[in-house]
Amino acid sequence: MKGNVIVGQSGGPTAAINASLAGVYRTAKDRGANKVYGMLHGIQGLLKEKYIDLSDHIKTELDAELLKRTPAAFLGSCRYKLPEIHENREVYDKIFEILDKLDIEAFIYIGGNDSMDTIKKLSDYAIVFGHSIRFIGCPKTIDNDLALTDHTPGYGSAAKYIGTSMKEIIRDSFCLEYEKGVVSIVEIMGRNAGWLTGSTALSQGEDCEGPDLIYLPELPFDLQLFGEKIRQLLQEKTSIVVAVSEGIRTADGTYVCELGNSIDFVDAFGHKQLSGTASYLASYIAGEIGCKTRAIELSTLQRAASHAASRVDILEAYQVGGAAVKAADEGDTGKMVVLKRLSDDPYQCGTEVKDVHKIANDEKLVPRSWVNKEGTYVTNEFISYVRPLIQGDVSPVMVDGIPRHLYTPKELSHR
Amino acid sequence: MKGNVIVGQSGGPTAAINASLAGVYRTAKDRGANKVYGMLHGIQGLLKEKYIDLSDHIKTELDAELLKRTPAAFLGSCRYKLPEIHENREVYDKIFEILDKLDIEAFIYIGGNDSMDTIKKLSDYAIVFGHSIRFIGCPKTIDNDLALTDHTPGYGSAAKYIGTSMKEIIRDSFCLEYEKGVVSIVEIMGRNAGWLTGSTALSQGEDCEGPDLIYLPELPFDLQLFGEKIRQLLQEKTSIVVAVSEGIRTADGTYVCELGNSIDFVDAFGHKQLSGTASYLASYIAGEIGCKTRAIELSTLQRAASHAASRVDILEAYQVGGAAVKAADEGDTGKMVVLKRLSDDPYQCGTEVKDVHKIANDEKLVPRSWVNKEGTYVTNEFISYVRPLIQGDVSPVMVDGIPRHLYTPKELSHR
Repeated sequence: MKGNVIVGQSGGPTAAINASLAGVYRTAKDRGANKVYGMLHGIQGLLKEKYIDLSDHIKTELDAELLKRTPAAFLGSCRYKLPEIHENREVYDKIFEILDKLDIEAFIYIGGNDSMDTIKKLSDYAIVFGHSIRFIGCPKTIDNDLALTDHTPGYGSAAKYIGTSMKEIIRDSFCLEYEKGVVSIVEIMGRNAGWLTGSTALSQGEDCEGPDLIYLPELPFDLQLFGEKIRQLLQEKTSIVVAVSEGIRTADGTYVCELGNSIDFVDAFGHKQLSGTASYLASYIAGEIGCKTRAIELSTLQRAASHAASRVDILEAYQVGGAAVKAADEGDTGKMVVLKRLSDDPYQCGTEVKDVHKIANDEKLVPRSWVNKEGTYVTNEFISYVRPLIQGDVSPVMVDGIPRHLYTPKELSHR
Repeated sequence: MKGNVIVGQSGGPTAAINASLAGVYRTAKDRGANKVYGMLHGIQGLLKEKYIDLSDHIKTELDAELLKRTPAAFLGSCRYKLPEIHENREVYDKIFEILDKLDIEAFIYIGGNDSMDTIKKLSDYAIVFGHSIRFIGCPKTIDNDLALTDHTPGYGSAAKYIGTSMKEIIRDSFCLEYEKGVVSIVEIMGRNAGWLTGSTALSQGEDCEGPDLIYLPELPFDLQLFGEKIRQLLQEKTSIVVAVSEGIRTADGTYVCELGNSIDFVDAFGHKQLSGTASYLASYIAGEIGCKTRAIELSTLQRAASHAASRVDILEAYQVGGAAVKAADEGDTGKMVVLKRLSDDPYQCGTEVKDVHKIANDEKLVPRSWVNKEGTYVTNEFISYVRPLIQGDVSPVMVDGIPRHLYTPKELSHR
């Protein structure tokens, strides 16, 4: 490489997105890039000319190792969708003006569906208007819903954290006895795709029965059948643990988390309060059966828990970052790096590049055949698919009892 | 020892309570105990003659190591308060009849305040009615609110998990930019004592600013001042993270989590829904300031996350279990083992026994001098007190990517 590289992070943060950033930086430097810039808050920050020189932040090999162990987006992220080119050319002109000023040769964007849309539009624009900058996408999302790639970096670490936490929640849940039993509803991220919710089944093993029921957003949710199922299970067991996606919907398409709003569910300020899916179901079961219930949301920790990251995931995220730079350096543009599983046993996975036009805005869902007939659990195929992705640990660098991260660029959190 | 030992677990589970169980078992066996029984679901299960022979479950050294790494109560737990002796002698007669039948010499109870009340009553009864069984309490609670002991086993691991998770939440929270800023409210366990909420300050370091505000339940909470504080902070920072105890109350004693109920806050089944403290405050700030807010509850994971346990905590929990058996074997009864800090630097801690009458039903709160003048953060003294308790890790035994626990006695989760 002769010019400079710029890299950005976009969409929801993950535990592995910074490993991809480390991979981009390392490979760009190894291939002779002069400067490697990082956009702050993705393309949105770039439009305000907010960027940093990554060499000022990754000064040593140790810094790079810390970066791999730092959760969320080191550079900050954004949810910004570029307008169509014909709608607003000025935005594009401005971006290319900034990129040219910085002597950018390769533009790498680490993100999910929306971010691949950005790569698609920028590379289209460059081709149409004769710019030589190359645009490559680097997949990232805990949701694992990107098309054409076997899986997405970030998913394995989230699945490992969810499997581990689910196992601890199950253990905790049957400690105390309740006469009519106790039902714990655990709500997992993933509005449309059930990859994360299904990964709760990883808790199953010789030492743990796993959750009793798993409900993915891909299938319609029947509240009454659910109640009957719980009633049945409580005949045999004293503690029931259910995993539900935040996005489960009834047959008519209503989100379960909206059902609580049929009556006035407003707070002191008149705002409509969306009770969570788990808390709605917990209150439903308490009302129907009268047993003790508990609602648990894994919240943002499921995407940020780098202390429990998967080694396979972090290594792949790093490799994918490097592969993106390599592709750009070798002349590719308008492509996304994908992971291609070569073998399940032993697990082997390589990278390829695919045309980003085939990826952007397309959601990969859990296949129907990977869910049991009743729609209440994932199958062994699902578990065999996920299991290799959660292998190995990335031991945190502990300082005084707490994991150390690479320090935060002050521009991110302060005005 | 010539006879048998029986051990039970009581109250809320922790990540360290099973390490104490392992310590009891090992020391009892080393001191010649014939059988070591485990009550299922504490004294409540014992009254129904539900118990197991621990030798059937801890067969190898590896089993003992797995037990130390297993969260929640391996034997199950209960929240059962014995009646006063003069109110109901039959309960006591029944318990002693069962203990005599099992040839019990020492009765060890691992638990918090209520459990120490059980030890007090049973040892009083034994002395008054001439039974020779010895009763020793073994402290356990994530809340760290037991009197006379420097700290309680279980607290260090919870504090380490909370400090680690808080750091990850903070990192996650400023990834995405919001025009008016984003305020994340993180709710931590501890109804009356702020030891756990204060431990969020452990996230502070060279690489993290820590939470912006910390509110303990020991001090009255002023909603208006809180709003002003947030408004002020949003002038300087784009992302504010606040740690609140679930038990914060306004000056008139109203729990903040009950404030949302001033208007009808009932679910579809007519049940009054207690919105959590965090979700109430998040909705309050959204209403007052109009910024993006987020409510996060660390939920039961803060007491069950053995995958992130503190080595100091697990070792001390194990020692305390052993010390309880030793005390009983040497003739003590009606005592609780306590931890006595000998030195801060280097941290050194030993065990002693104290009269359980001086402990039971007494709550240790965070001293006022360990909270800043405004009541919005803990002081360095607080951090110096907690820091040694979170040192070191207990590497989980990973099987296929997920931590392995000692398997569950089936009696616990099945009817």
